[in-house]
Amino acid sequence: MARVIVDVMLKPEILDPQGQAIVGACGRLGFPGVTQVRQGKRFEVELEGEADEAKLAEVRKLAETLLANPVIEDFTLRVE
Amino acid sequence: MARVIVDVMLKPEILDPQGQAIVGACGRLGFPGVTQVRQGKRFEVELEGEADEAKLAEVRKLAETLLANPVIEDFTLRVE
Repeated sequence: MARVIVDVMLKPEILDPQGQAIVGACGRLGFPGVTQVRQGKRFEVELEGEADEAKLAEVRKLAETLLANPVIEDFTLRVE
Repeated sequence: MARVIVDVMLKPEILDPQGQAIVGACGRLGFPGVTQVRQGKRFEVELEGEADEAKLAEVRKLAETLLANPVIEDFTLRVE
């Protein structure tokens, strides 16, 4: 059983209102020094068998189709 | 400027309906071999200066207060 981590983040040029709201709250709650926060999604995908190249290609296609919106999001894959 | 990554996931004993919906969709969309998917949140927190122990303790407190719900979620920190 292999586990692949898919991290999905908004593209840098896309405005992140959730992240900005968190920075604002940091100031009010007394967390100085936080200059920026970006929020994204993290997926733990468990697969049968080992994570060979073919399986990783499949998870990449899954991420493009189902887990991320390629228009506004980038994603990275890594085997854990 | 330092960047700390905060990964927030549901505790293992908590049901993850979003993850289950994704596994169901994997079957329908022709992605065999996906046995389980868990979805969580990923935060990129940028700080002024270097990420020393004091700053990491601050980000840990921020995560407990603002980024994660300690009742149903676990989180991990790492400096990028």
